[in-house]
Parts: sequence; C-alpha cells; structure tokens
Amino acid sequence: MASIRSGARKVICIGRNYADHITELKNARPKQPFFFLKPPSSILPPKAGPVLAPKGVLMHFEVELGCVIGKSLRDFDPADEQGAIDAIDGYCLAIDMTARNVQDEAKKKGLPWSIAKGFDTFLPVSEYIPKAAIPDPHTVDLSLFVDGKLKQSDSTGLMLYRIPRQLADISRVMTLEKGDLVLTGTPKGVGPVTVGETMKAFLKVNDQELARIEVDVAEKGGRYAFQET
Amino acid sequence: MASIRSGARKVICIGRNYADHITELKNARPKQPFFFLKPPSSILPPKAGPVLAPKGVLMHFEVELGCVIGKSLRDFDPADEQGAIDAIDGYCLAIDMTARNVQDEAKKKGLPWSIAKGFDTFLPVSEYIPKAAIPDPHTVDLSLFVDGKLKQSDSTGLMLYRIPRQLADISRVMTLEKGDLVLTGTPKGVGPVTVGETMKAFLKVNDQELARIEVDVAEKGGRYAFQET
Ligand SMILES: [Mg+2]
Ligand SMILES: [Mg+2]
Ligand SMILES: [Mg+2]
Repeated sequence: MASIRSGARKVICIGRNYADHITELKNARPKQPFFFLKPPSSILPPKAGPVLAPKGVLMHFEVELGCVIGKSLRDFDPADEQGAIDAIDGYCLAIDMTARNVQDEAKKKGLPWSIAKGFDTFLPVSEYIPKAAIPDPHTVDLSLFVDGKLKQSDSTGLMLYRIPRQLADISRVMTLEKGDLVLTGTPKGVGPVTVGETMKAFLKVNDQELARIEVDVAEKGGRYAFQET
Repeated sequence: MASIRSGARKVICIGRNYADHITELKNARPKQPFFFLKPPSSILPPKAGPVLAPKGVLMHFEVELGCVIGKSLRDFDPADEQGAIDAIDGYCLAIDMTARNVQDEAKKKGLPWSIAKGFDTFLPVSEYIPKAAIPDPHTVDLSLFVDGKLKQSDSTGLMLYRIPRQLADISRVMTLEKGDLVLTGTPKGVGPVTVGETMKAFLKVNDQELARIEVDVAEKGGRYAFQET
C-alpha cells in the first residue's frame, strides 16, 4: 500500500453534509451533494510536523472520515451500496483545515475555494485504516479536541448524503481513480485553531479507537499574507 | 518524460489574467492573482477522443498556455524571472473547458468551482513542447477556432500577471511539484461550443506552429444532468 500522500492523484471533499454544521455556518442546505478539490500537496502524514498557519488567516478545523478509493469508478450507480463498499480500499481520519476568512471572501465574491482549502499541511491524515476494521462507514464516531477541549463529536450516521451517493455524484463528473481520497464532510462544532495549540482527533467504532491524529499548529512564515483579491 | 496526464499530481489554473477577458465576462479585476484546481483526471491527451459535453451544460472553451513544472517550488520569489524559467520543464497548449452555467451558479451561490471545471475530458492538451522551443513564454501566440471560425487570437504578452508572479503566488500557498501543470489564463473571445462541433487550437512563436489541438465535441451520456445545487 502506497502512503495516502503518495497514492492520491486527487482529493475530493463533500461540502455541507451534516445538517447541524450547515446551520452553524449559516449556509444554505444543498439540493444535491457538491464537492471541491484539495491538492495532494496539502496532505500532512502522521508525524510529518505541524499544521502551518498562514499569516492573517483564520484557520478552522473540520474532522472528517476519509475513504481511499481502490479502483476506477465512473458514473457509479448511487443505489449500488455493496458496489460502493467494494470500491473502497480503506479509510483514514482526516482534518479538512480551512482558511475560513479566505473562504468567506471567496463565497462573497464568487471566487473558487482552492486557496482557502489548499495550503500545504491543510490536510492532516491518520495512519491508513484497513477496510475490514470498519464494517459500516456510516457507524463511525469522529471527535476532535483542541488543547484537550472537546469541539466535535458525532457519528457518520448523521451524513445527509451517504457514501454510495457521494461516489455516484463525484464519479458522474470526474472519474475516481485508485488512491484518490474522498472526504465525506464534517459534523457540527467546527471552529478556530491558532498557533501554539494542539489538535487531537479520534476515529472510533463501538468505542474502540481505530485511528488518531495528534498535531500542533505553528506559524507558516514565508511570503503569504492574507489580503483582498 | 512521463506524459502530461500521468505526470501531473495537480493542475493549477490562473483566473482572470487578461484584461479583455475580464471585461467580456463582466467580472471584477482581481487585486492579486487567484487560482483554482482542475483534477488530473480531466486531462484529455492528444488523440484520446472527443471532449464530452455533460447534459444540460453550457460548455465554454478557454485556450491557454500550460507550463509543466520541472522541480519542487515553495514560496518562490516573484522577482526571480530566471528562476521561474529554470523551474519550468516544458510547455503545452491547453483548453480549459468550463461548464459556464455550472460556474455561474457557483459564483452566485458562493460554491466551489471544482465541478464546473473538473469534468472528465475538460482539459484537452497538446503534445509536450520542449522548453528550448519557447525562448520567452510571454511572446507566444494562442488561437482557437470552432468549425473553422476564429474565436480567440492573442499573445501571452497580454497577461496581467506574468509567469514568475503566478508561480510565486501559487507556491506560497501550495508547493508546486515536478509534473504539476500550471494554466496561465485565457485571452478574450471565450464562448460556447456544442456537440458535433470541432475545436482547433494553435500555439505559435514568430508565426511558427509549435503545437496544436484538434478535438471534436460529443455527448457525455451517463447519469449527470445539470440541476440546481
Ligand atoms: Mg487536484
Ligand atoms: Mg470539509
Ligand atoms: Mg481558464
């Protein structure tokens, strides 16, 4: 198994897939799943250093279940629940880091989200979880703590659009390839994290821990600084 | 040299980089470069079949100069003009196909552009152009014809933000890696193309043709049909 970082040709993230998260950000509920891309260069493997906070950026965490795709999928049938599971090679825990003020400007001006979502280190992932460890990806408990304080804690059973539908809607637009990573959306509780803080996230099934992320936040440095586009 | 399709981990596209193109789409002129991602799965190599038009989609062509990155770049200095050329492995001609009605909805609702830009076959590319064939990427003539009618014809000298600045602004957000493809924006004249039509695009330097794309447009078929998000 190649690492998640080296194996991914693309990373596709479902937006607004938990009702209470839509409410907390005052977003409109989508009439169908939508998604966006993060670049593979944003993936931060375990023990690869801190999440880097760009200057002037309000950085938010979003804990999510990730599905690593095991084979090519095109125009997948959303009713084929077993086929969806068969197409998954394994799973990971992931944090979809988001430059919320960059995204807010993009949303207001109708600009793309790629910068807000695509900074280096903006996608911490856990170790790879073999598929057999998760009998049903819709009964997984996700949680995230910042400096020991619980911020997010919900079951993937709360997804508005389940994984077969996600794979169907993505693959009718863009072919899913072996190694691609699909992030399935974040539950409620997203919020800011800043330099000097530590995030811990856990993925459990039946109270058994299958994966964790422990990652600090540090300054990015360099030339980037948030300014108006 | 791996093919452009197999070598790209990411494709980064500069938006609104020619003044007359900004005017024709009634867009605001950006105060700094911005960019978005297309998935590598959208790349359509030469002779790999037609561009596929999804149901209900108003499809636009955007002819662009592509730069294939030759080495890892992070936080690149925009003043380093020679360094930018050194970081480029070669070039290609490309058409950034865009689902304009999908994008218009995304812009209106503050949604990401990834679907509008990311359909399979939405990035026809020419054969690879060795770097030595283009002494200065800012003196390249791009043109595009639909069924023999000239639609776009301009010099890359009209770019608002030149390539060193583009590589700088991208790489201060996301590390550019060997094989990544950077599309540098489209000049004026973008417009619709429909099933049964043929696009031809040319890249010339000093009236000498260095690359061309010839590609038909056919129906995509399958489950996708444009509907409200
Ligand atoms: Mg990508
Ligand atoms: Mg997310
Ligand atoms: Mg374009």
